[in-house]
Amino acid sequence: MRTMGEGDEAVADVSRGRWETRAATARHAVTRSTGRPLGNISCGDLSRENRRRFPHLTAFVDGATRLSYPLFDERTTRLANALAAAGLQAGDRILWIGKNSVRCMELLVAAAKLGAILCPVNWRQSPDELAFVIDDIDALLIVCDPRGLEDTLKAARTSSRATRARWVEAAGEDGEYEALLASGSAVDLDLVVDAGSPLLAIYTAAHDGHPSAALLSHSALLNQAVWLAYMYDLDASDTFLCAGPMFHLGVYLFILPLFVLGGTTVIATRADAETICRLTVQERCTVAFPLMQYLIDEITELNRDARYDLSSLRTSSHSPGWDAMVTLDHSRAARGSRWGQSETTGGVTWYGVGQDSQSRFGRSSPFVLVRVVDETGAELPVGEVGELVVRGTVVANGYWNREELNAETFGDGWRHTSDIGKREADGSITFIGPKGNMIKSGVENIYPVEVERVLRSHPSVADAAVIGVPDEKWIQSLKAIVVPASGCSPTQDELIVHCKQKLASYKKPRSVEFTESLPRHDGRIDYDELNRRHGGGGYPGGSTRSY
Amino acid sequence: MRTMGEGDEAVADVSRGRWETRAATARHAVTRSTGRPLGNISCGDLSRENRRRFPHLTAFVDGATRLSYPLFDERTTRLANALAAAGLQAGDRILWIGKNSVRCMELLVAAAKLGAILCPVNWRQSPDELAFVIDDIDALLIVCDPRGLEDTLKAARTSSRATRARWVEAAGEDGEYEALLASGSAVDLDLVVDAGSPLLAIYTAAHDGHPSAALLSHSALLNQAVWLAYMYDLDASDTFLCAGPMFHLGVYLFILPLFVLGGTTVIATRADAETICRLTVQERCTVAFPLMQYLIDEITELNRDARYDLSSLRTSSHSPGWDAMVTLDHSRAARGSRWGQSETTGGVTWYGVGQDSQSRFGRSSPFVLVRVVDETGAELPVGEVGELVVRGTVVANGYWNREELNAETFGDGWRHTSDIGKREADGSITFIGPKGNMIKSGVENIYPVEVERVLRSHPSVADAAVIGVPDEKWIQSLKAIVVPASGCSPTQDELIVHCKQKLASYKKPRSVEFTESLPRHDGRIDYDELNRRHGGGGYPGGSTRSY
Repeated sequence: MRTMGEGDEAVADVSRGRWETRAATARHAVTRSTGRPLGNISCGDLSRENRRRFPHLTAFVDGATRLSYPLFDERTTRLANALAAAGLQAGDRILWIGKNSVRCMELLVAAAKLGAILCPVNWRQSPDELAFVIDDIDALLIVCDPRGLEDTLKAARTSSRATRARWVEAAGEDGEYEALLASGSAVDLDLVVDAGSPLLAIYTAAHDGHPSAALLSHSALLNQAVWLAYMYDLDASDTFLCAGPMFHLGVYLFILPLFVLGGTTVIATRADAETICRLTVQERCTVAFPLMQYLIDEITELNRDARYDLSSLRTSSHSPGWDAMVTLDHSRAARGSRWGQSETTGGVTWYGVGQDSQSRFGRSSPFVLVRVVDETGAELPVGEVGELVVRGTVVANGYWNREELNAETFGDGWRHTSDIGKREADGSITFIGPKGNMIKSGVENIYPVEVERVLRSHPSVADAAVIGVPDEKWIQSLKAIVVPASGCSPTQDELIVHCKQKLASYKKPRSVEFTESLPRHDGRIDYDELNRRHGGGGYPGGSTRSY
Repeated sequence: MRTMGEGDEAVADVSRGRWETRAATARHAVTRSTGRPLGNISCGDLSRENRRRFPHLTAFVDGATRLSYPLFDERTTRLANALAAAGLQAGDRILWIGKNSVRCMELLVAAAKLGAILCPVNWRQSPDELAFVIDDIDALLIVCDPRGLEDTLKAARTSSRATRARWVEAAGEDGEYEALLASGSAVDLDLVVDAGSPLLAIYTAAHDGHPSAALLSHSALLNQAVWLAYMYDLDASDTFLCAGPMFHLGVYLFILPLFVLGGTTVIATRADAETICRLTVQERCTVAFPLMQYLIDEITELNRDARYDLSSLRTSSHSPGWDAMVTLDHSRAARGSRWGQSETTGGVTWYGVGQDSQSRFGRSSPFVLVRVVDETGAELPVGEVGELVVRGTVVANGYWNREELNAETFGDGWRHTSDIGKREADGSITFIGPKGNMIKSGVENIYPVEVERVLRSHPSVADAAVIGVPDEKWIQSLKAIVVPASGCSPTQDELIVHCKQKLASYKKPRSVEFTESLPRHDGRIDYDELNRRHGGGGYPGGSTRSY
């Protein structure tokens, strides 16, 4: 299955707290049980403990399959042993391509027991996008459930240049996956895996036109799981309806808290109204992956005659019809909003930490530190807008195979989130938006996203963008490009005054041009085109990358 | 203040997961901010974050002193800088001798910022016991508040052989402590301290007649704090009345959860009924260090006329009079019992984890793994009695300066707790009692504590002990020494049958002798004396150490 040594030098390893370019480093994360570090708990250890402490509880339900904690642990041991026999080692990647399945969780915990990394890939991507991921992650093993994805998969395999990966088909009870699993011994090798080593790879933020995989460690996942148990008030009596896609970090933020506490996850392959209702009734589900508005409306409509008893489900308030069907969630997490990203294993700041706050995004959780910094990395005073940087046990180890990007965004010991925000006087953090371009006017740094948000809050404005144009005195000054709201004719002065009331004076646009629509690409404003049309560009002193 | 190099070789350092004999290792835990590990959060980092996120909240109240989170952080920075200037380095010990004071917490966080270790010592000890601790911990700095301890301190200093320690008096607002603190710069050096390095030293279990200091790391304290926040349902709106002694780990299990969440700790120097009532009313305290029965009775009596409004206080149910004064606690922790020790940062297993359980001690928390093992360290099947061993992020790094004991009780990667117990069929853990002697009868291991517990449960038995006596066939067999309950005359056969009904047959005593009282030393059964009196001893195959 593997040519030893081949590819090792080219493989980037992101070990705890820093990134290195040799896979060899990751190998050191795994040793035999002798010299076991007392304080280390891997996600494999957690499954081993669950087998012992939760013999009576159901870990996963997936269609007709019901796995108790002991059975789940045994299957992951068999799978890990089979993968080890096939040559898989610590630091190696496993790709999961398929709709929701408990097999994705089995692969995650089997990877945990080996010190390997699981990447559940977005199957909604185009064949070319999928082929990019297949080539980028350089997996030794690709496990796929082709049902419903036959054409995409075929095209992606044709486009992909990956040759060393072994493909295993996971469909059915007598397919390759089950045969592979059954070939593994049930005797747990009990390898010591460094809890700081990466376990879950989630493709996220696009840089230079391609997504990158954030690497989340065992301890990041475990610490965030316990924090989420606290915020969502979860325990072993909870059953999570996993209707969100398993390539999305969000579902793990419910699966893992329940896994550490003895709760049950019910895996839904489809996320339609009827499936959600049926499974909720059947399994008495108590929590669901945050449901989209349209889905809540569909369920409310479908269940008008109350044929489904959804009262076990704890959710946020939505509408009188919905609220009457479910149980309203009074957990801490339900009281407000949060800010975070996949690179921080989800939520970093939470409304309600440290009581109420000016910002609806609240304050940092105990497992992460937040700073607002300028472009040199120096901390900014309260109220000043800059980039949000974080560090802590829930922060990703880095991106897979992105040496330059890692140096740029993780290199100084803080994760640079590319999100801008500010600290309020009461210590809370206001998230303003993705960084985008920064404009330097005189000595002042101005983030267009902050000014655009203020412009869009004006009742006569439908859309707005801000660019920097050459200025004799200030090097650059701000120009706003505004799409008036239907039937409105705002004036330049009116909008500049509006900005001056809401922002520091140097952040106000010096001029406003009106247009019928803004150039956008994949929903994002195309600043290059805007600059061409309206005489902007250059952005001296600022980043030229648009996130 | 310090002779460089002197004593370094003799100083035992317990770094994360293993123990070493050279202090030099601990020094490596601290580096300058360059190369900062992303995933590392020390207790000093937490205070730095609190300064930013909780500018509006009160961290500590101690008499007339009220410290906001920013002010507390600034004071710990000044103190850390002053200590560094005086020569204190990572791995060095600071001793706190004094009744409850916020200065003990300031020293803890200052130590955290330097990578040093704080030991708050039991001031109720005799001068000789105190002198033993002073010599054993080999502190560079001893901070003492002599108020109420003048005679003990004087005698302890005379007995102590420690010569290199600098003594600083902490009494009053214009004493040595405040002068030292004021001499330190308010500029935070922001040293990187390994979260796995020890921070808090708590003297606990006596071995060979002397106590040993368990070393708890930053991450052990932080992880347990978040778990306790979950179990006790704590947040920033909570105020802890710290009436328990600050040399006891228990108080930190409330102080630290509130510290990570923005709550307030009110420090009581005295723990009498009047003080508790007065502070509860004055600060609207919501949680208190578990109050002793006698104290609850005293408060109930004192407050018969309801002159104190204690309704803010959330406690367990006790008596109708008490319950009517307070708010009953419905947190997860209030629903049942737990098992743990100082060496595990408190609770390891908790009733309610994984729903109900056969054992009132429940199941392990997510930050620790538990096994029941035989004397070779092999895991025992469900239902069999053995030693409880643990590992995980909340487990101590080891004992200070106890090379042999560490090898024995932490050496194989598991903390051997010296507590015996068993796993129930539902995965819960029953804690039976401290290990004591083990008796080997034939090939069977028998822990006297288990049999003694069964004997004492008989209505005709006031007290009981079990020893091993020579047996031709089984090498040893069990003999019970029983003190009958007043007015009762149990027979040998009756008690043997009682044991047989409750225990595996091989665990029943073969003979019973009756006596008027058991020889005890410091409350513990003196097995050596029992053996002499009743023909026991030897314990082939078992430990000869009585814990």
